[in-house]
Amino acid sequence: MSNAVTGQALAKALLNPASVALVGISNNTEKTAARPLQFLRRAGFEGTIYNVNPAREQVQGEQAYPSLSALPEVPDHAFILTNTEQAIAAVEECGALGIPVATILAGGFSETGSAGVQREKRLKDIASKSGVRLLGPSSIGLVNVHQNLTLTANAAFGEPGLPKGGIFCASHSGSLIGALTSRGRSRGIGFNTLVSVGSECDLSVGEICESTLDDPTITGYLLFLETSRNAEALKRFAIAAAARGKPVVAYKLGRSEAAAELAVSHTGALAGEDSVTDALLRDCGIARVDTFEGLLESLPLLAKTPRRKSGDPRPRVGVVTTTGGGAAMAVDQLGIRGIDIVPPSEVTQKKLQAAGIDGGSGRILDLTLAGTQYDVMKSALDTYCQAEEFDLVLAVVGSSARNHPNLAVKPVIDSVNQKKPLACFIVPEAPEALVLLTEEGVPNFRTPESCGDVIASALNRREPNPELKTATGNWPSNPRPIDEAAAYELFAEIGLPHADYIVVDVNEPIPKLTFDYPVVAKILSSEISHKTDIGGVVLPIHNEEELGKAINLIRHNVEKNLPGEKVERVLVQRMEKSVGEALIGIKRDKDVGPIVMVAAGGIYTELYQDRSLRLAPVNFDTAMEMIGEVKALEALKGFRGRTRGDIKAIAEAIVKLSQLAVSESHGIMEAEINPLMVMEDGKGALAVDALVTVSA
Amino acid sequence: MSNAVTGQALAKALLNPASVALVGISNNTEKTAARPLQFLRRAGFEGTIYNVNPAREQVQGEQAYPSLSALPEVPDHAFILTNTEQAIAAVEECGALGIPVATILAGGFSETGSAGVQREKRLKDIASKSGVRLLGPSSIGLVNVHQNLTLTANAAFGEPGLPKGGIFCASHSGSLIGALTSRGRSRGIGFNTLVSVGSECDLSVGEICESTLDDPTITGYLLFLETSRNAEALKRFAIAAAARGKPVVAYKLGRSEAAAELAVSHTGALAGEDSVTDALLRDCGIARVDTFEGLLESLPLLAKTPRRKSGDPRPRVGVVTTTGGGAAMAVDQLGIRGIDIVPPSEVTQKKLQAAGIDGGSGRILDLTLAGTQYDVMKSALDTYCQAEEFDLVLAVVGSSARNHPNLAVKPVIDSVNQKKPLACFIVPEAPEALVLLTEEGVPNFRTPESCGDVIASALNRREPNPELKTATGNWPSNPRPIDEAAAYELFAEIGLPHADYIVVDVNEPIPKLTFDYPVVAKILSSEISHKTDIGGVVLPIHNEEELGKAINLIRHNVEKNLPGEKVERVLVQRMEKSVGEALIGIKRDKDVGPIVMVAAGGIYTELYQDRSLRLAPVNFDTAMEMIGEVKALEALKGFRGRTRGDIKAIAEAIVKLSQLAVSESHGIMEAEINPLMVMEDGKGALAVDALVTVSA
Repeated sequence: MSNAVTGQALAKALLNPASVALVGISNNTEKTAARPLQFLRRAGFEGTIYNVNPAREQVQGEQAYPSLSALPEVPDHAFILTNTEQAIAAVEECGALGIPVATILAGGFSETGSAGVQREKRLKDIASKSGVRLLGPSSIGLVNVHQNLTLTANAAFGEPGLPKGGIFCASHSGSLIGALTSRGRSRGIGFNTLVSVGSECDLSVGEICESTLDDPTITGYLLFLETSRNAEALKRFAIAAAARGKPVVAYKLGRSEAAAELAVSHTGALAGEDSVTDALLRDCGIARVDTFEGLLESLPLLAKTPRRKSGDPRPRVGVVTTTGGGAAMAVDQLGIRGIDIVPPSEVTQKKLQAAGIDGGSGRILDLTLAGTQYDVMKSALDTYCQAEEFDLVLAVVGSSARNHPNLAVKPVIDSVNQKKPLACFIVPEAPEALVLLTEEGVPNFRTPESCGDVIASALNRREPNPELKTATGNWPSNPRPIDEAAAYELFAEIGLPHADYIVVDVNEPIPKLTFDYPVVAKILSSEISHKTDIGGVVLPIHNEEELGKAINLIRHNVEKNLPGEKVERVLVQRMEKSVGEALIGIKRDKDVGPIVMVAAGGIYTELYQDRSLRLAPVNFDTAMEMIGEVKALEALKGFRGRTRGDIKAIAEAIVKLSQLAVSESHGIMEAEINPLMVMEDGKGALAVDALVTVSA
Repeated sequence: MSNAVTGQALAKALLNPASVALVGISNNTEKTAARPLQFLRRAGFEGTIYNVNPAREQVQGEQAYPSLSALPEVPDHAFILTNTEQAIAAVEECGALGIPVATILAGGFSETGSAGVQREKRLKDIASKSGVRLLGPSSIGLVNVHQNLTLTANAAFGEPGLPKGGIFCASHSGSLIGALTSRGRSRGIGFNTLVSVGSECDLSVGEICESTLDDPTITGYLLFLETSRNAEALKRFAIAAAARGKPVVAYKLGRSEAAAELAVSHTGALAGEDSVTDALLRDCGIARVDTFEGLLESLPLLAKTPRRKSGDPRPRVGVVTTTGGGAAMAVDQLGIRGIDIVPPSEVTQKKLQAAGIDGGSGRILDLTLAGTQYDVMKSALDTYCQAEEFDLVLAVVGSSARNHPNLAVKPVIDSVNQKKPLACFIVPEAPEALVLLTEEGVPNFRTPESCGDVIASALNRREPNPELKTATGNWPSNPRPIDEAAAYELFAEIGLPHADYIVVDVNEPIPKLTFDYPVVAKILSSEISHKTDIGGVVLPIHNEEELGKAINLIRHNVEKNLPGEKVERVLVQRMEKSVGEALIGIKRDKDVGPIVMVAAGGIYTELYQDRSLRLAPVNFDTAMEMIGEVKALEALKGFRGRTRGDIKAIAEAIVKLSQLAVSESHGIMEAEINPLMVMEDGKGALAVDALVTVSA
């Protein structure tokens, strides 16, 4: 695959080809396979178009060639419009001829069961042998608006006059690139390029976006995602985009599966797919929005909002409005997303008074009718945009935005380039005002829900985790559990504390304990993970006599419950007095790589799905932040007069375990400490049980 | 107040007056107080308009009168546009002249502190003495679109050609009636009447809506609420509206306060304001939506969707689409709101096959491009609308809705009047298609979020609770706690089981127990609610000797911790073995009346705000449903192999306690059983602690 294009050469052939071949282009303009030629001509594409149709000498009045081989030159990009089987043959021809990129419209591959999986494997084999790069299959094509390249069968792009802009859009859904374009059009939002990535058998969202990072005409990236496939390329792209100051926003399907599934308590299953995606996007510095409208509205605000750091206080927003009821809707939507609306400080209040502005005494600055006067609104916004107490200022404009769009939004437009990000929510139907704001670079919202969604998403967006390894390598598979004592040895090596223990050979006399009673005795075997269920755990044990009986009881129970199993060793562990417990775990997720989790453990972790996830490794600040996201761990923070637990010790354990997750020398597939016993504040935390799986 | 208008006479004078007086109408057309005359003339109001302005003989070229008394007749309705003080004088004049209704634009009343509260009291006194009914203060007026009555100072109503429709809108926010009108206009949604109710010093949302219930031109009610004031009138209205089959939808501000507040564990504080509103709206049969767009979009679907009954299975929706990605967004939004998307049954699949429709095998019927053909979509929708397995059918239409609006939505329009409710989500920007659907009576949505919101809200809407008392009377106040023994006597009277106990006089010999040890001893006093904190509880007690010591210890502890307190009586109670606990409580909420709550109790109830609320009383089915809404009570339902608790006994206790909440003879202000000990399935549940407050 040495001749396969990558980087800027890929971007050129894929997104800005000098020549394209339309394989299987139809003469019947009613057919989907006829559209790309129609659309390219209508849009005025200036490159060369080669029509390939073995059945006709002319297609839509233009010359047609019988095959790719018959073309007078090797085109940059072939768009294959044929059925599934013919598409495979066409890709083969592309490979043989050295065509750098082929886009495949047909479905019928991995989404259709095992025969389809085989067909997709053939595509991949051809690509890897010949070096042809593939977009799709199931790609409806792509559109480079600046180059008039409407290389797509999506009917939405038959509409003339596509608005140009700086947004690069990549979408798993082909139909959505049309919907985003039409919805953007009504808001004055233009695109640079839109790509339907299909099922990403070769080129992924991440690689495609990465190849365009040095294009100065692209100001931001908008992703419509259905899966977290190819997360490594996405990570690389997102980290590089953040470094260049180019914002990335994603809308990801799949919230509901996470909500509906009753998670089970061990780390592997707890990390439901959507939570993992959430961790992936956040830790790469990608803003995730939950409203469809917010996806379109978010990039201008992301471009202006600084990224949040671990340990920063909760974001604070100041609201200035001409309509109390309208502003209250936005305030409600921000509040339910954890964004505080704060009133003006005394300093700000004095400035407002000095400017003759009656601010009222509430949480929002409600100018009512006075706010429809330019000077009043401008002066209020200027004062707010210079105030220390706000991270962002929101202007909420009422009916004047519809009746006098130019006048009503002018003060907002004139205030936008100040210290603080400024955004605007328009309460009535006022399309002209929204377009004006967009044209002038003011982030603007059409609904209170998208307003709350985008602002919360922008204020909570992070720097990419600097410790993130972008290449996690090919981890050996064949997971193999290790026993509890081996797990503690591993923990000791990385400095993660565990309770004192000794290993007892059940066929030998019990050795002298190196620690005090009471103790617990547990069957020690890498094969048995649910020790309690089979009577493999006895506690509390107060002296040596009880210990002897306990060991015998464990032998009896285990050999009864697991016929054929022979108990050889028992782990005897000091019982610890704690003020509470936590569950921490790591796992190599098949899509996104190593992740780390913290929860309280127990039944409520399951019932409430109450846990926090990140990509591994994490630093101390992030670990503290994770603990802050688990509601049940509030109980360890002095809640209602309880004894405070050693929260910092939990955080340190999370950090250490997360480092283990990315250690190539250890090859950990999954590890879980459940429970981590949490002592009172200052007295640490100890692992008292552990399940670890390594690659064989 | 015998001459005060109510019912249809109120509706006539308020919403359809033959003559209106504009008090304080301005000649300066730049001023807000000039607008009503301009707007009424522009709209072509055919009734009589009297201008009242003591300073001018003419206003805006029309005759003006110096005062209301100087008018040639008593008008039906006076719109008072003056400042606060003058408004009070004008209301006085209205009362003296026998004008039936006055609307007050000015603010400066109860929202501005104690002087304002006094001013509002003056308004109320005038109204109750003279019989004049008041809309406002802080009302921006009202608009009866069918009568061209734009009796408002809201600038939005200066726009000509208001679309007529069947929706009656009542709003706490005056500016929102403008925003709803303009947003409705762009969707082809027209209003019948819009009323800005202001701060409801007299006429409330409930009474105003109730007065219009027999108006055949009104097809549904849309409420924009900021508070739950005057809940009794709202209940009466909503119950009557449900009986007439007129749908009511509400958008209520205040979700975020509930989310932000950390509730505390006793019933009173747990019942945060927004949860109470939620219970009020649900139990009255009002649909609550959470998206602003959904508020406008919901009534057509509510008109067609049957109300849900307690015990009904989870609602199921069938989805037919031309765009997989677009449909997936709607599915996600439905899923996170607890609505199941179900695939077609075998019967339905066979019908689809017979009709030549390739359904795929997924959860949704994705017709892709074939769905843009009329016959295919029509046939698929007809089959779905007749299928037993769906409660509602959703059509999701892609770019064809923009490119060919008439063709694309025709099959949906032609399928709408069938057995099942049918709704439509349009993925691209396609305003024409949305207006067409509205005109043809098809519920339609512009965003996936409003689609999920409205469908979930419609499918979960209930019949009003038939046991709801609409007049809860004037409950005597001065709450007074009763002691635990008195509480158990009350419970015994209503058949709510409690643990066995005896009351011991600490100055007498201990009587023979009528039940077995172990027992618990507790200080018995109506004055002491936190018994444990002061050392007033001792357990477990295994015999009479220990009991004697325990009583002495309680005397010692209490008299030490509460100097001056004298321990007279101790309650000795049998200790019960349970499999779990619940917390149940009732309270007379100052706004909405008696409510009932169930939670699991303990720290997690607080941390997760995990409880269920209803207006009292409730029946057994509703009580079971409430238990189903408390996540932590899953632990009592055999979760992960635990012993099942007697869930029905909890439900029976909820029913009984809820009946006590509305018993006038008992006069309970607040009662809480915490905990209710839950025995294993079939063995009941017992109150083992109780806090009850009665009216003195």
